[in-house]
Amino acid sequence: MKLKVYADRLSQPVRAVIIFCEVNGIEYEEIKVDLANREHLTPEFSEINPMQQLPAIVHGTFKLFESHAILIYLASSFPGVADHWYPDDVYKRSKIHSVLDWHHSNLRRGPITIVQNSILAPVFRRPLNPEAVAEGEKILSAALSKIESFWLDDNRPFLLGENQPSIADLSLVCDIMQVKLVGETDWNRLLGPYKKVQQWIENTRNATNPHFDELHKVLKELKEKLQN
Amino acid sequence: MKLKVYADRLSQPVRAVIIFCEVNGIEYEEIKVDLANREHLTPEFSEINPMQQLPAIVHGTFKLFESHAILIYLASSFPGVADHWYPDDVYKRSKIHSVLDWHHSNLRRGPITIVQNSILAPVFRRPLNPEAVAEGEKILSAALSKIESFWLDDNRPFLLGENQPSIADLSLVCDIMQVKLVGETDWNRLLGPYKKVQQWIENTRNATNPHFDELHKVLKELKEKLQN
Repeated sequence: MKLKVYADRLSQPVRAVIIFCEVNGIEYEEIKVDLANREHLTPEFSEINPMQQLPAIVHGTFKLFESHAILIYLASSFPGVADHWYPDDVYKRSKIHSVLDWHHSNLRRGPITIVQNSILAPVFRRPLNPEAVAEGEKILSAALSKIESFWLDDNRPFLLGENQPSIADLSLVCDIMQVKLVGETDWNRLLGPYKKVQQWIENTRNATNPHFDELHKVLKELKEKLQN
Repeated sequence: MKLKVYADRLSQPVRAVIIFCEVNGIEYEEIKVDLANREHLTPEFSEINPMQQLPAIVHGTFKLFESHAILIYLASSFPGVADHWYPDDVYKRSKIHSVLDWHHSNLRRGPITIVQNSILAPVFRRPLNPEAVAEGEKILSAALSKIESFWLDDNRPFLLGENQPSIADLSLVCDIMQVKLVGETDWNRLLGPYKKVQQWIENTRNATNPHFDELHKVLKELKEKLQN
């Protein structure tokens, strides 16, 4: 009963799920659903996920969508996933839920608003929208500032003060990485003020490499393709 | 070690948490944080929740914010909470996570956008914004349509096909109830097309009464106060 992951690596939550599988030795089949070609809107994919979004998984007869729910399912169902990803301890686990819930209404809205209204707009046949980009940058900065001053206080290596990452670190860092698409200059301008955030991204990358770099290659490739 | 719930009943996720406590016989102390008076922005409350949002709980030395994380913590930590609220079964539990995650980026944005830009605007010293209200109505309708056609397909009484509600039913229904603030005419216009959603709201109300009606009294009281 091999796990099927419906994926387009351009999607940041897709990358989080695939990195999680790779790091934890979970065998999976990656089924490409090309977002730019609107394959997520087809009747075939709607049978997998009626919400027409990526990622989605099928495991035997069990279907699931929403990346946080998928990460929790994988951590809970596959033997051999280390406890630090999604601890059994109810207090630690609750803190992870809290970060992930906060992520939805805060950080997540930053990178997606920035890239969809700038570099990715032509890919998805949308107009450029500098006002929306500015709004996205404000959301991103506010969220990074909260992460820096609250969750990464005391120079913790990861969000919850442990020495190894949880699914919350992976999810949030993959979302921030999407900002790489707008180029190094803007990345440095937007991330520059947040030294602890930068170190935390590096810690999460190191803890999940070589898979982290492998999965993020798509950003560099797309950026080069769009520039040519 | 009595649970402290930081609350303003005007907030829909606050109501979900308090109804959950009442229905499950969880003893709690309700500590009012008046949103209209900006008490959630004070240094005192920032010590409880640095994100300055409601609800938040303190249980002994353990602090937690984000209503979904709180509901899961309460269901996991307090003896006597029936399994249907947050089942031990990994498949059922994963479906609940999936609904709750989807809720963040979809349904939740509808009611809050509608009421904050119409009836609640004067309370929070914000201008009325009919364009934002229209956008909120679109988000709400799209979300209700998905709930009606997917989760409530086959005339299930609750979202996950069980005969008793989960924390997902409670969270989503409390959010929709906020639309009552704009009045019966608009409620009927917005909810009218979704017969299964209406029945599901009624099922959730019946399964949690008298606490459901008690907690929602605040909506009628505020509406009358604003009209006078």
